Amino acid sequence: MNESKNNLMDKIVSLAKRRGFVFPGSEIYGGLANSWDYGPVGVELKNNIKKLWWQFFVQAREDVVGLDSTIIMSTKVWEASGHLQGFNDALVECKSCKNRFRPDDLDDKTKCLLCGGEFLPAREFNTMFKTNLGPVESNPVYLRPETAQGMFVDFKNIMSSTRLKIPFGVAQIGKGFRNEITPGNFLFRLREFEMMEMEYFIKEEDWEKYFEYWLGEVKQWLKLIGLKDENLYFHEIPDGERAHYSKRTIDIEYKYPFGQKELYGLAYRTDYDLKHHQEKSGQDLSYYDEATKTRYIPHIIEPSFGVDRTFLAVMLEAYREEKDRINLKLPVELAPYKVAVFPLLANKPQLVEKARSIYDNLRQDLLVAWDDRGNIGKRYFSQDEIGTPFCVTVDFDSLEKDDVTVRDRDTMKQTRVKIDELAEFLKEKLE
Amino acid sequence: MNESKNNLMDKIVSLAKRRGFVFPGSEIYGGLANSWDYGPVGVELKNNIKKLWWQFFVQAREDVVGLDSTIIMSTKVWEASGHLQGFNDALVECKSCKNRFRPDDLDDKTKCLLCGGEFLPAREFNTMFKTNLGPVESNPVYLRPETAQGMFVDFKNIMSSTRLKIPFGVAQIGKGFRNEITPGNFLFRLREFEMMEMEYFIKEEDWEKYFEYWLGEVKQWLKLIGLKDENLYFHEIPDGERAHYSKRTIDIEYKYPFGQKELYGLAYRTDYDLKHHQEKSGQDLSYYDEATKTRYIPHIIEPSFGVDRTFLAVMLEAYREEKDRINLKLPVELAPYKVAVFPLLANKPQLVEKARSIYDNLRQDLLVAWDDRGNIGKRYFSQDEIGTPFCVTVDFDSLEKDDVTVRDRDTMKQTRVKIDELAEFLKEKLE
Repeated sequence: MNESKNNLMDKIVSLAKRRGFVFPGSEIYGGLANSWDYGPVGVELKNNIKKLWWQFFVQAREDVVGLDSTIIMSTKVWEASGHLQGFNDALVECKSCKNRFRPDDLDDKTKCLLCGGEFLPAREFNTMFKTNLGPVESNPVYLRPETAQGMFVDFKNIMSSTRLKIPFGVAQIGKGFRNEITPGNFLFRLREFEMMEMEYFIKEEDWEKYFEYWLGEVKQWLKLIGLKDENLYFHEIPDGERAHYSKRTIDIEYKYPFGQKELYGLAYRTDYDLKHHQEKSGQDLSYYDEATKTRYIPHIIEPSFGVDRTFLAVMLEAYREEKDRINLKLPVELAPYKVAVFPLLANKPQLVEKARSIYDNLRQDLLVAWDDRGNIGKRYFSQDEIGTPFCVTVDFDSLEKDDVTVRDRDTMKQTRVKIDELAEFLKEKLE
Repeated sequence: MNESKNNLMDKIVSLAKRRGFVFPGSEIYGGLANSWDYGPVGVELKNNIKKLWWQFFVQAREDVVGLDSTIIMSTKVWEASGHLQGFNDALVECKSCKNRFRPDDLDDKTKCLLCGGEFLPAREFNTMFKTNLGPVESNPVYLRPETAQGMFVDFKNIMSSTRLKIPFGVAQIGKGFRNEITPGNFLFRLREFEMMEMEYFIKEEDWEKYFEYWLGEVKQWLKLIGLKDENLYFHEIPDGERAHYSKRTIDIEYKYPFGQKELYGLAYRTDYDLKHHQEKSGQDLSYYDEATKTRYIPHIIEPSFGVDRTFLAVMLEAYREEKDRINLKLPVELAPYKVAVFPLLANKPQLVEKARSIYDNLRQDLLVAWDDRGNIGKRYFSQDEIGTPFCVTVDFDSLEKDDVTVRDRDTMKQTRVKIDELAEFLKEKLE
């Protein structure tokens, strides 16, 4: 990792805190092991990512429906899925300094990264968070490490309530928890994270076709959120390295400043999931195909997306250092505010009043920021740092000519626009 | 609880499952103690509730910003808030049948509700879910029982990143967990639930004014989601029964079929929260008022809302049994689908093609259902049960006259509308 790239992460973390995108979790108490809270503009950006994903992968499609299943599920789910037996990470501990590492993260597996000490033999531990359900008895339950299992467990109820025909998908956005040994790199590896996952149920013989199809859709999505091809890498996971249930997996990797690492995944999960849940639960999870009068256990293609990693990649991609400013060149659809409105001077009631009426009018359809602090230069500077695509200034000319200055975030070009044409002007620019 | 009201809950639970609003969680494994998953139409209804709340309480306002803080926070947060010491429920256990109850739920506190046996002495237990952070060490952490603490802990970061001036609010939507002794009544008392909370920071002397103000806003919200006055009760919690930190609390209660019970809460929390976090963390959480050159710890008015209880109340309020149908009279803004489009017959390509072009056109702006199964009567029946406000049918006349039948869910009135005027017609009706 070289200095300047490391530096970029520091700058992003600092911008994120300064402008209210992301704060260190529990910071007043010294923080909590790599936990992060989304602040006022961060929550809007994060919600925009989730909304766009839901529109693209669920609402715009006839063959995909949504689900919102619980984080705590029956422990039998994790027995059937294999998580209880096998969701383990290897861990090595230094004999001297007692620090713990994932063997994957060590280039030199013989001595401690931090103190050069010797390691104890590697051991396994389950990375699911365990808790207890109910007031007294010992009734262990786990926080889900993925949302996918909800889609399998509810498969039958979804089929019978929607009467969807294969191929169809079920999608879900929600929190997952993994007790990582070494969380880190800001939003990259978190113990508490949010995922967007889809399980697409198919006939076995169609798996290659739909694998390619969903790879195409994932590429469309990557375009939509503005990630450039040159920063992406499609890593075909070779035989022997895939999860035991998968016959083909592609990791979609992003070139983060700390290395090229996983962003998303696309996996052909075979019929592993439904088959195991059928065996374990004793419930019939097969699908009856009316056209061919056959009954089978559906196979599954799964595209899965981390919300926090998307947020991080989007921030990294958008971040630009220019001469006198930082420009966060967010795609319009993801920007927390679409427009900011300023009165040139805060102490001139006529300017403020006119600016307010424009502000109130625009915010019926858009999320609009208001700023009357400091001078115009400072306000542009602030809005650029949070990625607001357009700033509208009401000045003394506005009072006479009923027009305003619209300033474009990326080109910094300023255009005079008539107030009664402003909404339409912005709407076009924003589309 | 009388028979017919009990019956109503059963009917709602059954409708919810049948139509894909809510499924019993982990059902194929025999379920998990009153956990519920939101199905394909349920997740849309739930998302619509959250979206509307966010628009009303955050985005439409200049004085409120959002937050999305983690579920697992530093344990010091729960020490400062008092949850670790005092978030207890009393529990009584029957000597004979070993069943456990909350004393509140027992009319007769001397014998067991189920077997008539004697109770053991009541005892206390903490209802926070406990788990362990990190791979090996004993590092107990808790799942948050409320989202509010995130707003207090991040107060300083929010102030400095937004430079908001008091009065201002911070709002959050997210999951909370309480290890209830007796969860029950469908979505009413859950161990895993979702909340919408706002902390509104004020000067002490303004508390009565803002308490009244937020009571008014809560009433507006109740109107917005269609809950009728006659089913609501504003319960002023008397001295001695409020939480120790609160100087005034109103429980907003709803007349559920199982009794009049809490829906929302509005509390004046004084400066208890920030004061305790300041003491415990050693960080300065005061606010500097530039106008008066004074520094003080803000006081707090907190309106809080359960998402799942809102969902339940909205379903109950909307549910109508009519002669030949169930009509789920959901407010238009909350309905999962706004419109459904049908070709009169599925086996007539011309009808299907015309209906598809209408469907594709409408769904650019709205969530639209498609149904070509069974006959029109059955399709109306299905759409009424999920609360779709309008159904559009393409019939043979449509092919000649370029018009369609639009049928209104509530009046069942049918209107012929020209296809090129349909989008506008529906848009007006839906507003």
